[in-house]
Amino acid sequence: MRAISALGAVAVLGAAGVLGACSSDDAAGNDGDKVAGVDIQRAATGDITKNGGARRLSEDQTQMIADSIQKSGAKNVILVIGDGTANQEYTLARDYEYGAAGQLPGIDQLPFSGDYTTYSLNKDSHKPSYVTDSAASGSAWSTGTKTYNGGISVDVNGKAQRSILEIAKANGLKTGDVTTTELQDATPAVQVSHVSQRKCYGPKATLEKCPENALENGGLGSITEQLLATRPDVTLGGGWETFNETATAGEYKGKTLDVQAKERGYQVVRSADELAGVKAADQDKPLLGVFADGNLPRMWSKATAVKDGNKQPAVKCSPNAEFTSAVPKLGAMTTKAIDLLKGDKGFFLQVESGSVDKANHDADPCGQIGETVQLADAVKAALDFAKESKDTLVIVTGDHAHSSQIAETDAELPMPGLTRNLTTKDGETITVSYGTSLEAGEEQHTGGQVRIAAYGPGAVNVTGLSDQTDPFFYITDQLGLDRDKK
Amino acid sequence: MRAISALGAVAVLGAAGVLGACSSDDAAGNDGDKVAGVDIQRAATGDITKNGGARRLSEDQTQMIADSIQKSGAKNVILVIGDGTANQEYTLARDYEYGAAGQLPGIDQLPFSGDYTTYSLNKDSHKPSYVTDSAASGSAWSTGTKTYNGGISVDVNGKAQRSILEIAKANGLKTGDVTTTELQDATPAVQVSHVSQRKCYGPKATLEKCPENALENGGLGSITEQLLATRPDVTLGGGWETFNETATAGEYKGKTLDVQAKERGYQVVRSADELAGVKAADQDKPLLGVFADGNLPRMWSKATAVKDGNKQPAVKCSPNAEFTSAVPKLGAMTTKAIDLLKGDKGFFLQVESGSVDKANHDADPCGQIGETVQLADAVKAALDFAKESKDTLVIVTGDHAHSSQIAETDAELPMPGLTRNLTTKDGETITVSYGTSLEAGEEQHTGGQVRIAAYGPGAVNVTGLSDQTDPFFYITDQLGLDRDKK
Repeated sequence: MRAISALGAVAVLGAAGVLGACSSDDAAGNDGDKVAGVDIQRAATGDITKNGGARRLSEDQTQMIADSIQKSGAKNVILVIGDGTANQEYTLARDYEYGAAGQLPGIDQLPFSGDYTTYSLNKDSHKPSYVTDSAASGSAWSTGTKTYNGGISVDVNGKAQRSILEIAKANGLKTGDVTTTELQDATPAVQVSHVSQRKCYGPKATLEKCPENALENGGLGSITEQLLATRPDVTLGGGWETFNETATAGEYKGKTLDVQAKERGYQVVRSADELAGVKAADQDKPLLGVFADGNLPRMWSKATAVKDGNKQPAVKCSPNAEFTSAVPKLGAMTTKAIDLLKGDKGFFLQVESGSVDKANHDADPCGQIGETVQLADAVKAALDFAKESKDTLVIVTGDHAHSSQIAETDAELPMPGLTRNLTTKDGETITVSYGTSLEAGEEQHTGGQVRIAAYGPGAVNVTGLSDQTDPFFYITDQLGLDRDKK
Repeated sequence: MRAISALGAVAVLGAAGVLGACSSDDAAGNDGDKVAGVDIQRAATGDITKNGGARRLSEDQTQMIADSIQKSGAKNVILVIGDGTANQEYTLARDYEYGAAGQLPGIDQLPFSGDYTTYSLNKDSHKPSYVTDSAASGSAWSTGTKTYNGGISVDVNGKAQRSILEIAKANGLKTGDVTTTELQDATPAVQVSHVSQRKCYGPKATLEKCPENALENGGLGSITEQLLATRPDVTLGGGWETFNETATAGEYKGKTLDVQAKERGYQVVRSADELAGVKAADQDKPLLGVFADGNLPRMWSKATAVKDGNKQPAVKCSPNAEFTSAVPKLGAMTTKAIDLLKGDKGFFLQVESGSVDKANHDADPCGQIGETVQLADAVKAALDFAKESKDTLVIVTGDHAHSSQIAETDAELPMPGLTRNLTTKDGETITVSYGTSLEAGEEQHTGGQVRIAAYGPGAVNVTGLSDQTDPFFYITDQLGLDRDKK
């Protein structure tokens, strides 16, 4: 029975030999039903100016923790990534949208959390590189192998490493890959492809930047061609531009990748309405939803930070007109993916809110917050399903820390970087600082360890300190997967 | 029996009614002995360039988590604070001193971790203030009440709020307060005093800055006078300068605070050697160790970040000659305090590595890393005792996030703030950025949620999201304290 993993068998709380000897198997009584009752609320409910009024914990957590530890392995795993999302980003979004004493839906309701180290490898020295990019970080959790910045699910020597999604598929599970970015961007790409350079989106770039991966040279092809060959049951995101490229070698030579997708049997949808109309997705008719030429638009309009922005009046964020009703929200894509994947086989689904990172690079706090709100909505959708299904592990993390910081609100302070004042839900001013570049668009990733949180079977593995390669192992273990199965 | 708290009684894993019904009390079998076996190692042990080589988890954590959850309340609590220490600071210290795949002693070995929100209150609007100072943050965990920046264990209206240390003492426990800063600095002060303005160190400043707290006006007196009156069994740190001041009112009027301490029965020690010679400390002869006029010197010499420092060669940190053998290290002070406090009564001990914050303000990565290493040593000392004693809760956290960030190492990048390149244990270059001020000495706190980690009875309460006021409640609950006892 696949859902009982090797590790799961050890992970019995209350059963004989672990915490004490019970007289029968029934006595262990550690059934999943307990989890359904867990409905954690972590917003303060009191007067925050009074003793105890700001508490988020209403009682000792031990009972809840006990309820959250399950002996069975996971049938389904939903891994939700906020690209470039760590403690400063979570707090900024909470403060702005829900108030400092409020909670981020889903994210703040996960019972277990911890941190993992994100360093990547220097391609030349093979020693640690202290600030990762999304390619190396995604490769780490996807394959369990550290690599250099820019490498997509290859090791430091360029050798392909199998991803969780590929292993899950080989073991008979359904699979999904959902993002708000181009489908060829690093985070979605690490689950479905192996290239030596992250920019190898289509046949043209591959011949230029990573010719060893090109089909004509005996490689696996560009990221998009590998995505089509890997064939997840559900693939949703942006990046249509590359699908207009023409294959330069292989079985589909001379045909566009769009045509190739259709000839391979994919249902291709291009709008939120079309997505809503899809009734099934499987290996006979996998779903490919592509809702923008490039990245999906951000939910909120830009409000770029500027030099001395901390001296300017505070503003509110506003909806982005480019985010039309034709663009599906991340929460809706997540719910749809779950609906299409759930069933007897079990599934592995990766979901990414990718533009928290991109807005951070742009020194755009409103874009960043809006995409963190999208992340929270996706987590809530995953958590709602997990609470109902009882055998679903939900993991939420960022791939690396980023430049944004909540700074002191003081118009007299000479701030070296780009700053912006916003008016929060509390009606107060919050100051956001981007201090790693004076050029919006050039803000950098940072190297701090990153929060990882979870709910469901195996969720305990996230607490304390771990490494970004650890999730590969506990996810595949919890799913009971044979990592060598072809 | 005090050590069994009301919450502790609920916190039974594996016992009847929690995870399942066992046939006898013995069957619960959840004794503290299990904890002694926990010896977590979280450094990577493999070749970090190979699949799985960078893992920090050697196996599923569920068994360890089960071992870490205890039904009994805590007899002792050790709360260790890294001032201004959050994920960027932990990672920088680990990368530099132990290598990216290494571990911070103690800190990285704590089984549970999570994050708490640190916002303080605006004194005028009583609404959230998004970046706290050490006074408001310390008041939050110390008293369970949010306050304004600058307030020392008073509420937003200036009303005194009882601290954990005061409550523990009233309940018959022994108590200690240890720091690397002046004893009057905010973090040590919040456990022993209540003033409306954090700078009210001695009688003179109190008459000027918070006259309502002055003895002559019917107040509780300056921070130092309140410290002497609160009378912890063990008080260790810096700040001798204020002890040379003369009391301007009250029973000791006209006498220096130094004389007052001796007349009140304190054993006063001024060097590491004298500290080592102390054999006992209790309410008859409480220990007051003061090892510097101001803050204790930092363990490592300054290597201040500068504009365009990322274009300069990387350096190694060096020992600070001012840190002579007369100055006790934080780890040694922690061990000594534990030795003097342990016994039948149980104890509450707060330990602070205070200059992680001060070096951060100074844009001094070497100072900052050295004091984070001191923090790790203190945590290791606490953890060593907790593993042996089995009934000790160790909590480790920072009071607020700070400005330092690990940035990309690239001499071509135009960095707006102050930067510095260091050569790590790995033999690679790491770049540290301070982006909230161009003036060393003026770097700011930041508002991100902060890591909190723990070991021992009640440790589970730190995981997931909580608020900075929560520890007041679960610490006093785990100790079984009557919070109203005078």
